[in-house]
Amino acid sequence: MIKTAIVGATGYVGEELVRILAQHPQVEISYIISHSYVGQSYASIYPSFNNIITEKCLEKNLEELADKVDVLFIALPHGIACKKIKPELLKKVKVIDLGADFRLKSQEIYQEWYNVEHEAPELLNEAVYGLCEWKREKIKNARLIANPGCYTTCSIMSLLPIVREGLIEEDSIIVDAKSGVTGAGRSLGLSVHFTECNESTKAYKIASHRHTPEIEQELGVKLTFTPHLIPMQRGILATCYAKLKDKSLTYEDIRQVYLKYYKNEYFVRILEKDTYPETRWVRGSNFFDVNFKIDNRTGNIVIIGAIDNLVKGAAGQAVQNMNIMFGLDERIGIDNVPACL
Amino acid sequence: MIKTAIVGATGYVGEELVRILAQHPQVEISYIISHSYVGQSYASIYPSFNNIITEKCLEKNLEELADKVDVLFIALPHGIACKKIKPELLKKVKVIDLGADFRLKSQEIYQEWYNVEHEAPELLNEAVYGLCEWKREKIKNARLIANPGCYTTCSIMSLLPIVREGLIEEDSIIVDAKSGVTGAGRSLGLSVHFTECNESTKAYKIASHRHTPEIEQELGVKLTFTPHLIPMQRGILATCYAKLKDKSLTYEDIRQVYLKYYKNEYFVRILEKDTYPETRWVRGSNFFDVNFKIDNRTGNIVIIGAIDNLVKGAAGQAVQNMNIMFGLDERIGIDNVPACL
Amino acid sequence: MIKTAIVGATGYVGEELVRILAQHPQVEISYIISHSYVGQSYASIYPSFNNIITEKCLEKNLEELADKVDVLFIALPHGIACKKIKPELLKKVKVIDLGADFRLKSQEIYQEWYNVEHEAPELLNEAVYGLCEWKREKIKNARLIANPGCYTTCSIMSLLPIVREGLIEEDSIIVDAKSGVTGAGRSLGLSVHFTECNESTKAYKIASHRHTPEIEQELGVKLTFTPHLIPMQRGILATCYAKLKDKSLTYEDIRQVYLKYYKNEYFVRILEKDTYPETRWVRGSNFFDVNFKIDNRTGNIVIIGAIDNLVKGAAGQAVQNMNIMFGLDERIGIDNVPACL
Amino acid sequence: MIKTAIVGATGYVGEELVRILAQHPQVEISYIISHSYVGQSYASIYPSFNNIITEKCLEKNLEELADKVDVLFIALPHGIACKKIKPELLKKVKVIDLGADFRLKSQEIYQEWYNVEHEAPELLNEAVYGLCEWKREKIKNARLIANPGCYTTCSIMSLLPIVREGLIEEDSIIVDAKSGVTGAGRSLGLSVHFTECNESTKAYKIASHRHTPEIEQELGVKLTFTPHLIPMQRGILATCYAKLKDKSLTYEDIRQVYLKYYKNEYFVRILEKDTYPETRWVRGSNFFDVNFKIDNRTGNIVIIGAIDNLVKGAAGQAVQNMNIMFGLDERIGIDNVPACL
Repeated sequence: MIKTAIVGATGYVGEELVRILAQHPQVEISYIISHSYVGQSYASIYPSFNNIITEKCLEKNLEELADKVDVLFIALPHGIACKKIKPELLKKVKVIDLGADFRLKSQEIYQEWYNVEHEAPELLNEAVYGLCEWKREKIKNARLIANPGCYTTCSIMSLLPIVREGLIEEDSIIVDAKSGVTGAGRSLGLSVHFTECNESTKAYKIASHRHTPEIEQELGVKLTFTPHLIPMQRGILATCYAKLKDKSLTYEDIRQVYLKYYKNEYFVRILEKDTYPETRWVRGSNFFDVNFKIDNRTGNIVIIGAIDNLVKGAAGQAVQNMNIMFGLDERIGIDNVPACL
Repeated sequence: MIKTAIVGATGYVGEELVRILAQHPQVEISYIISHSYVGQSYASIYPSFNNIITEKCLEKNLEELADKVDVLFIALPHGIACKKIKPELLKKVKVIDLGADFRLKSQEIYQEWYNVEHEAPELLNEAVYGLCEWKREKIKNARLIANPGCYTTCSIMSLLPIVREGLIEEDSIIVDAKSGVTGAGRSLGLSVHFTECNESTKAYKIASHRHTPEIEQELGVKLTFTPHLIPMQRGILATCYAKLKDKSLTYEDIRQVYLKYYKNEYFVRILEKDTYPETRWVRGSNFFDVNFKIDNRTGNIVIIGAIDNLVKGAAGQAVQNMNIMFGLDERIGIDNVPACL
Repeated sequence: MIKTAIVGATGYVGEELVRILAQHPQVEISYIISHSYVGQSYASIYPSFNNIITEKCLEKNLEELADKVDVLFIALPHGIACKKIKPELLKKVKVIDLGADFRLKSQEIYQEWYNVEHEAPELLNEAVYGLCEWKREKIKNARLIANPGCYTTCSIMSLLPIVREGLIEEDSIIVDAKSGVTGAGRSLGLSVHFTECNESTKAYKIASHRHTPEIEQELGVKLTFTPHLIPMQRGILATCYAKLKDKSLTYEDIRQVYLKYYKNEYFVRILEKDTYPETRWVRGSNFFDVNFKIDNRTGNIVIIGAIDNLVKGAAGQAVQNMNIMFGLDERIGIDNVPACL
Repeated sequence: MIKTAIVGATGYVGEELVRILAQHPQVEISYIISHSYVGQSYASIYPSFNNIITEKCLEKNLEELADKVDVLFIALPHGIACKKIKPELLKKVKVIDLGADFRLKSQEIYQEWYNVEHEAPELLNEAVYGLCEWKREKIKNARLIANPGCYTTCSIMSLLPIVREGLIEEDSIIVDAKSGVTGAGRSLGLSVHFTECNESTKAYKIASHRHTPEIEQELGVKLTFTPHLIPMQRGILATCYAKLKDKSLTYEDIRQVYLKYYKNEYFVRILEKDTYPETRWVRGSNFFDVNFKIDNRTGNIVIIGAIDNLVKGAAGQAVQNMNIMFGLDERIGIDNVPACL
């Protein structure tokens, strides 16, 4: 059994990690760490865990946990993990950080977009960007995983095959992404008050969302990214636009490119021609669904990808990373059927 | 492995059965039967099953299936199962009927409420009403299970302990139930058009819903039952009212009664005092959550129960019945953590 | 033109008042008072008012306002209005209080349910409970209106005809009410976080909600009241249960009773037999829709009423009160067609 | 009083027309025409109209209506209006067609996108495309108005100022639009079944939606258009992307361009810098809200526009057209405050 601690277990990503790990046959949840709810039973915060999780929330420092568990999952706001994770820690325990602190390779870009000092720049090089389907070999031996963001996972997975193959004009990429409200987290605010986001749609952080440099780093191109808030619990739909260099490319040509990269990937589903992703078809699962259409009238390609933001976009991919790091079948504990209803 | 066929697999209850059975470690889905989609791949109807279910929908009669599987799950509109299920069939295969045809012991009451002739009255006596926590011993040896309805499961589970103990005035029971829209099924109609049921609430089939005689049969008392439609996918909340015979009874007294019947039941969760069920805490799971409050000012008790209508209220309980019938641990395949987000 | 000030204009009830009064042909909004947003333009808080309301939020005491306007609308949390409204104030200005402070005639009951001292008990007798259809004559000459609560308006309007006529057993009344989330107000809290109340239903403040004594005062009987939170913006549906004294009463008999009280009431709509209220049919309007069914099997009557909680349940009824007080046609400014889509 | 007939009054656009016209002080609704509900009272189909509309649905041909009313509103599926509207009809009555038949100037393009024969090509030239803010002078004397589509109104209004001024690269335009479900109309289908579109988001008719040629006609450029279905009742948000020719243009420069075209337009609201449209701020109103951001990193401009699809995107704009045609103040009957809650 792999012994785990979840640090930041009472946020939405933390809850999803607890939910997945509690059902993982090779895992033991040893510690549930929550600064805000120390001493309270986890099931009193999320009564869905009644009869299932009896542990209380604790507060412990990472060094102490490192001596007792095999892997630390860290789900904290940015700027905290880079203060707490030190090179010595990584000698004792594997770390999967679900926050943003180790995703960007460039300290300057991090500081520019996040407006805080990065306190562990010496680890940026070692940290492996945990986009499993694209970094599997590096993940196997990693000590520190920077688990990708939700928008970024969906955007990069959608675009990387055709970018990698050089099929599109590099200055033409637009990503218009739509997210359910769990993506905004559990913190209170008017923007997540039911009656302020239900029955409405809006764009936010236009051309300024922090997932932008992360997408750009992995694609190697600049682009315009616009996130939108959708009145639903879960799900990200990324509608990606780009100009094809070669206007004679057909749907089948592009499909072959996606198959080249994804045909053996269990968690990637390239849908049948003329059927397109909907967020409900991946709900609650670790799947990434994708399809695309060539707009012959304009020479643009439209690629549509969908994930569950809390699973493949956060906790599910974190567990996929753990499975890879510990030599398990990648699918264990996260191969459930999407709950489409 | 238990070989199964699901008849009526493309309705919402059918989908949920396929979803649960596809993940059940002791089960093989041998046949997916759907009159409406013969020849189409199941995953083309529910793309959530892409990469998971490759079977096509078939049409086969029950006799043929009986020779090839161990258990038949039947999820068809009322009036069909009682035409198709014959005594000879039960000699060859176990049957779990998720429809209404074998739930009522009285042919007259069935015909009065359903307005159709019952074509297999000779089986009414043999059929076991599959409310697992209350009929476990009979279920073990049953050949034909009448899987309870969604409203009925929630209502009976909420009320039976205090009714059984004779604590309430028998003519005082009111059940005010609220259901998500999956309860109305997949058939088209204005009442399930998104813009006709979203952002609204209504009562329907007031004092005339067909689950009423089923609740009354199991409780042994008459009552007024009002179902309501709530703009959400899943979940039933039953708010039950009754007058206590003895006004001096305390919360603790009543709690002991619920513990007497439920304390060893994995799928029943009596919540802590002063916390009450919400449908999200059981979403996607087989749990029944319950708690109650005594209104000392009026002498009424208010009991609140919650289930997921598609799981404990349909497919989950059907699988629980199967587990009991086949001598498995009752929880296998249905012990997942609720998906509260 | 009637000069008005709205005190507490940035809460949801305040917004709805501003929205209605801004479109009222006989009204001028002279002051928008908001303690929390002093100096900010109202349209920056609610951008729906862009191009319509250019005023800023001010902070002014009631005495100052009383010299400048004809009527004060007060939409503040309980316990504040009774501190601020003094007998001298009422000599200068009419006051419509949308809070709870002057609804209960008994200071003791107020203090028992609200847990605060009532600081203006000398006004309790003078204050008129502004349930327009039932108190019209008193409202005409009132100086201080206690505008009824949302649940209470719907519950009393549903039940008062048969209670007044003595048709039901007095200890048998149950009110099971369902409300949209605007009813919880604009204050932040986990219970109104989108992802904590969307896709779920719950009862709350069971047998202890503060609208209970208000309903009881007007009906003159004790009852059990259970409010529920429904994932929608607006609307209250009250499902009311009671035992009929005379089991031979027919639908038509009871209909005559409702017609006796309501047949000349513009804002009351007794629906056709066998059609029942849905909250969407009154959305955004001042209508109260009602119908009922006799459950002959149990001798219970089920009465279902629906209002928009922010309109007939708050701001609309407040304006209806103002119209009556100032001798206007009662319907002016609030006779819009419900927005059912 | 302007006498009106509404043909196709029971669809969602029809309902919205009836709702608006019933409250228009200069209008009399003379005939409510519905093929599907002949003989039924309108209020039995939409009970929101109880006590307000007592008329029954009739079936009458346009010629007969033309003799009795001043203006015909036609809200029928495409392909029908062009069969029914003949040049002689226009000599007798003004016609506002809310369908697609007269929007496209080119018969060929119409037939290509709609796959039906156009049966009144001789009227295509005369028909005035009723985008009020841009065609006001022509509308004044029009006999036949082609009322714009919902997506098109929002897209054209968002983009036309900068396209007209030649500020963007013409082959760079992307419109990513999001619509509430009323946009799909009242017809039944799985795609509008509550549980199939609630809690999910999808793109549909990618690069093939019929509003595309309409947008292109008015803008005079080709573009890629992707509509998305959002789980909400009303509202369209159009997120528009284009490459600026001159990278040195500032927010203020572009703002001046929008002000040039819109500063005197009551129904256009250019929001304050850094605040962006949300569909709820225009809900139930005829406003078009807009703002934009320059993404200096990529040279793209992102323009975001929002309307209520049933009002400015259909019935409201139709009434605005009527007001212009009959010489009324353009705002009459449609100047209500948005219902943001």
